[in-house]
Order: sequence, then structure tokens, then C-alpha cells
Amino acid sequence: MGMTMTQKILAAHAGLDSVEAGQLIEAKLDVVMANDITGPMAVPVFRQMADKVFDKDKVILVPDHFTPNKDIKSAENSKSIREFAKEQGLTHYYEVGQMGIEHAILPEKGITVAGECIIGADSHTCTYGALGAFSTGVGTTDIATGMATGELWFKVPSAIKFVLTGKPGPYVSGKDIIIHIIGRIGVDGALYKSMEFVGDGIASLTMDDRFTMANMAIEAGAKNGIFLVDEKAEEYMKEHSDKEYKIYEADADADYDAVVEVDLAKVRPTVAFPHLPGNAKTIDEIEAMEPIKIDQVVIGSCTNGRMEDMRRAAAVLKGRKVHPDVRVMVIPATQKIYKQCIKEGLVDIFIDAGCAFNTPSCGPCMGGHMGVLAAGEKCVSTTNRNFVGRMGHVDSLIYLASPEVAAASAIAGCIANPEKVGDR
Amino acid sequence: MGMTMTQKILAAHAGLDSVEAGQLIEAKLDVVMANDITGPMAVPVFRQMADKVFDKDKVILVPDHFTPNKDIKSAENSKSIREFAKEQGLTHYYEVGQMGIEHAILPEKGITVAGECIIGADSHTCTYGALGAFSTGVGTTDIATGMATGELWFKVPSAIKFVLTGKPGPYVSGKDIIIHIIGRIGVDGALYKSMEFVGDGIASLTMDDRFTMANMAIEAGAKNGIFLVDEKAEEYMKEHSDKEYKIYEADADADYDAVVEVDLAKVRPTVAFPHLPGNAKTIDEIEAMEPIKIDQVVIGSCTNGRMEDMRRAAAVLKGRKVHPDVRVMVIPATQKIYKQCIKEGLVDIFIDAGCAFNTPSCGPCMGGHMGVLAAGEKCVSTTNRNFVGRMGHVDSLIYLASPEVAAASAIAGCIANPEKVGDR
Repeated sequence: MGMTMTQKILAAHAGLDSVEAGQLIEAKLDVVMANDITGPMAVPVFRQMADKVFDKDKVILVPDHFTPNKDIKSAENSKSIREFAKEQGLTHYYEVGQMGIEHAILPEKGITVAGECIIGADSHTCTYGALGAFSTGVGTTDIATGMATGELWFKVPSAIKFVLTGKPGPYVSGKDIIIHIIGRIGVDGALYKSMEFVGDGIASLTMDDRFTMANMAIEAGAKNGIFLVDEKAEEYMKEHSDKEYKIYEADADADYDAVVEVDLAKVRPTVAFPHLPGNAKTIDEIEAMEPIKIDQVVIGSCTNGRMEDMRRAAAVLKGRKVHPDVRVMVIPATQKIYKQCIKEGLVDIFIDAGCAFNTPSCGPCMGGHMGVLAAGEKCVSTTNRNFVGRMGHVDSLIYLASPEVAAASAIAGCIANPEKVGDR
Repeated sequence: MGMTMTQKILAAHAGLDSVEAGQLIEAKLDVVMANDITGPMAVPVFRQMADKVFDKDKVILVPDHFTPNKDIKSAENSKSIREFAKEQGLTHYYEVGQMGIEHAILPEKGITVAGECIIGADSHTCTYGALGAFSTGVGTTDIATGMATGELWFKVPSAIKFVLTGKPGPYVSGKDIIIHIIGRIGVDGALYKSMEFVGDGIASLTMDDRFTMANMAIEAGAKNGIFLVDEKAEEYMKEHSDKEYKIYEADADADYDAVVEVDLAKVRPTVAFPHLPGNAKTIDEIEAMEPIKIDQVVIGSCTNGRMEDMRRAAAVLKGRKVHPDVRVMVIPATQKIYKQCIKEGLVDIFIDAGCAFNTPSCGPCMGGHMGVLAAGEKCVSTTNRNFVGRMGHVDSLIYLASPEVAAASAIAGCIANPEKVGDR
């Protein structure tokens, strides 16, 4: 029996010729990452195992969740990983003001490339699958083990193959596609499986579309999401990284639990209603409902804070004004994206429209800061989770959407169709 | 006996020919302002007195302290004044993303002009004295009374006259001057008095210098700070406001408790050491000490978040890098300033140097968010108060400084002299 993309990467990192689903392996790690929430918990566990990290170039710490520090506790947490990074001489510690959100930084800085085995103490670590890497979120004890030894055990996942065909419409992006997919398979539809994205439809997806989709694999319960590497992905890696990368393709006879075909041309702007990312409704279904008035819009996060996301949101907001009952937080994922937004005039567009343009941070995504919700408030957000109370009060409601749907909704004051705002 | 500037304004607003220090009067109010901390407390008190505010054009609400909302509690507070503003049809409610910090907004929008009687439920309401207004901070009950009746009682203050002469050196700005003054008279040196700034030295101060100085009058215990209106102030008001203004000058025989002469040419870059704004030390005294290593720098706030402040800080940081042990928060006071910073290339300078450039907010000034301090951390801040625990942990230390000293310190990693960094 052949292997999936994921299984091939895991076999190579375990020093085995082949692996099969369910097998327990010990794999070598290329990248081990933690942030200002998980890092402070991992360090004391690490200290029980080792004095020095296994490789100062491969252990990455990024304070991005409650930064700039929102309170004394978060300041203490950031301090603890800052001091640890200094003590250990870590190459990749990214202080506030230097970079931004972990899952945007790592590809941008070329730290993650195809064929690698990557763990991060953050559930959206699956993002790097967009580059053809095996990449997954782990807990504090596992990340501490990875920091100490450079290895970790895994149960080899089985996989679902997603065959993407066709070309998405002008107002459909990676976010609509992944919400559409999660809507189809459910939030446990890929539980402990790999979501492997293949097919000629990939070619029409930008790298930012792919990061968004891989990022949300965990929202279908997946162990990881991974894209077949094409020329566009190779170009991206050559532009951003000096690291050698390795492309793994699934064997022709690889065993998949299921094959799901997705015609991208048929995907509509799609919104995930409270309280699950799989609660997908198309914009057409929403337009047939009573208008859903909103209080806040968030455009940003590790899911949708990249350059293409900023461009798409700005294109909708250009020359328009945010609805007076809505406040809008725009949060670029990195300082590089921030600067590019300035260069392209997007920050002016956002501010002129009445948006708050914030410094890179995870911000309100997990109810951290920069736009936490009060009781009864509704938010259209480009983030990745709409669980009960995720962005604030337990009685607030989160609608997950693309940057364009978010921008259109900001203008309309209710969940809105970007096709009817813009004139693209 | 003649009257001071302040006394003349109060007499006019009380409908009296003259008033004297210590007299209790009832004065009509031109502006009544509250924010997202004080507004939510004032509204229930207001409701005990009235159904409608006395004038929907004169009651101003600005959510700027814990915004973008840092947590559920602040979201609930913002919501309460947002709903109140809507219910009352207030002309001047400034949502997040629209404007910024209250004390920067009001002059910028032309809401406050010379000769007015202004109260705000925020101690730094004294800022508008830069425009020749009587302006003072009050408590929640008083602001509620003002909102309901448009009047408030005052005990007429006596005054100290500050005669400014000479021209400050290139690295000396309003912040150095006011810290120098508070250092001379002490943090209770003007207790319940007016600080009236006159003299030909005023001409060499920008409006932003004057806002900074009036802003910190409260740090000397003053009831208000007020500048004699000159051509520059008149130009500012004509540019920003359609309101009629009235210039009040003190009578020649006005009674002042003291006259303090300040030769601006002799003021040095001056820093207020923990834990009082009057703990002034010149940069020369600091250079003679052991270096004071710092962890954070904050450039912004109602004291120093204006355009001149941004320019001065950027001029020092241009082409340089923030010290690796220091994180730097730059926070423009309004969206207009933000856009001007983009236009002049200052945001690029700040980001290239390694600063976080945040959306307008009071942020870390009162330990709110956007850069709260951990135990043992030292911060050079352009804000206005360095009390114990003001910006975070009770064991953190705050050094109040000008934007240029703050920028120089960010580069050096310790409190530093901007004269020795730049080449202006």
C-alpha cells in the first residue's frame, strides 16, 4: 500500500521506509514553536528535561497573542519567554514591533518550507501545510519535549483527499472555500486525519488563499492540512527562504479514507454562523434571511491577516464609509504586510473608511484584546473560530467570513454580499 | 483688585462683573466631556437628574481609554456610552476608528476654543488651556450634573504666573519645560491654583508644546493651566474651528500668589524619575549617573501623541534600530495624526526601527493595555504620570520624558540624551 503526502514526510522524519495509518513513530523535528500563552507553560516542563534546547535555530518563540501586553499577567508571560530566548540564545525570537503573528511570520521569514516536520504549541500551526510541510499543533508537554530533544512521537494519520477543480469567482477566496469544505464534512469530518489538497484547482489559489485553508484544517478536526507543492509554492519558498525544501507527492496507490471533489467555480461567498466553523451558509442563503445586524468587524489574524486579505478588504472599502453602528478592527499579520499596506495606500483607505488599523497581534481572535465583544454583540470576523464566548462575552455571536464579506458587512451594518458593494 | 485670565473667564460664565479667589460661583459650561471609564459611571447619576442632556452639541463622549476594547468589562462600558450617545443624539460621539484620544480630538475638531468654560471627567482635561480656555477635570457626579444642567459650581482659584522668556534649544520641547517647572514648584506647587503662562517665550512654543504643558498642569496640582492667546493660537483655532472664541487677558493689577520666571533657553532635556512628575532630573544629571537600563518606551498619549511629537521622535529614530532589549510602542493620538504620519513617511521610520505603531488609544498610560509593564521593568514614557504601578506592576518604574529623549533611549537601551544621537 502506498503512502499519502503526510505519511511520506513522517516516514522520512522517522527514518523509516514506510509508515501506515495508526502506527506510532518517533519523528525528528525541523521547527518547534511556542507563543506567549503556551511558551510560559512549556518552559518549566522543558527545564525538567534539559538545560539547553536541542537546536537554537529550530526553537522559535513569538509573543503575539496578548501583545502589546494587555495586562500585568500577559506582561509577566512575555517576560518569561523573552528571558528564556535570551538565555538560550534563540535565533528566532520575535519581539513586539519586530514581526507579528507567528503563523504569518514563519513562512514570511522562510523558517518553514516544504517537506518539513513542524510542531507548534498553537492549534493553527497546521498553516504551514500550505507550503507542503507536515505541521501540527501540540500541547505544552509535547512542545517542551520537542524543545529538549528535537523529536516527538506521532500516531500516523490516515487522510482525506480533497480534489480541487475549477476557478473561484472574483469574490471567493480561500476562506470561503475552507468554510464550504468544513460545512460539507463537519467540524469532526477530518478527526485526526490529514486533509490533503490536490487537483488543478490549486493553481488558481494564491499562496495566501492556501495559508488560510491549511490554517483552518484544525477546524475540521484534522491533524494537519497539506497542499501539493506547485510552481507557485516553489516560487514563494525561493523568494522567502534559503532553506532546502523537499516536495513529497502521494503514491498513486495511497490509501485515502475518502476523496472529496470541490469545484471551486461553484463555491459561493460563505459564512460560518455561530457557534461552529462548520455552520456554513452561502451568501445567497443569507440574503434570503432577515438582515443580521452587526456591531463589529475584525479583519486580520493568522487566518486572514495577509497581504491579499488586506487588498481584498480595502478594494471593497475604498471610497466608502463604515456603517455608524459598526466598529472595524483591521490588523495586519506582520510588520512587512503593514508596510506594504502603507505603500499601496491601503491604510489610508481603511482609516478614511473609519477603521482602526492596529499593530500586528492575534488581538480579538481569542477574546484577547483589540476589540473584545460585549453581551449581545455580533461580529463578522475573518478569524478561525466562532465558539461560544471565543471573542468575549458568552452571549456574543461570531460569524466567520472572508475579508471581502467582512468589508461589505462593515459598510452595510449587517452581513452583506461583497458582489453587490464593489464594481469589480 | 484685578482678575487673572482664569478669573475673567469664570466671571463671564457666571454672569458676574468680577470674581475673586475663593469665591463660590455657578458657571455656564461650553463643553462637558466624559470617556469610556468615567462616562459609564456618570450616566446612571445623570439619569437621577434628567432625561435629556442640556445640549446635544456640548456633551461629548469619547471611548479612548480601554479601546479597542481590551476585555469584556471594557466592551460593556463602551457599549453603555455608545447607547447613551445614540439615545441622546449626541453630535460628538467618536467611535473607535473615527478619531482617537479625547484631549487631542477636541482641539483638532475645533470643539474647544479660547474663552470657554470646559469640564471633562478626566484629570487631563486641563489640556485645552493651551487655547486660552478655562478647562478642568471633574468627578463623575459633577460631570453628570454638567450633562444635565449645563452648569457647575466652582471655587474660583488663585493663580501663579509663569513668565516664559527666551527660546528653547533644539532638543527641548514642551515636555521638558513642564517637567522642569513641576520639578521647581513640586507636585503640589500649584494646588487648586491656575497656572497662567505668559511672556514672550510663548512665541517660540508650537501649539503642540503648549498642549503638552497645559495637559500636565494637573501634575502640579493645578485647577487649570492656561496660555495667553497669541497669533499662533488664533491661527490654530481659525484653522480648526468655526466657533467664535474670546481672548481674555489678565488685568494689569491681577493678584498672583507667585510669579515664576522660566528662561526657556536654560531648560535642558528633563526627565521625571519614579514615582512623581516633580522628580525632575536634567539629562546632564542623568549622564553623570550609572546608565539606567530600560525595557520599554512609550511615545504617545494625550500629553505627547501629537504631530510634532511624532516628528521629533521619528527624527531621532530615522535610519536607526531600537535596542534589542527594548520594545517600543508608538501611539498617535488621532486618526488624522496617523494619516499625516503615513504621508510624511514616519510610520515607515518607526516600523523600520522596530517599533509597534498602534491605533490611537490611551493605551498603556494608565496601565490599560498596548504595553503594560511586568514586575521590575523600567519604561521611558512620554505620558504624564509615573505614580507607583501606573503602567502595570507595582514594582515597575516609569520615567517621564519628551518624545526625543524617549526615542534616544529606545536606541540606546538606557535613558539617553537625544543631543548625542541625532545630528540636527
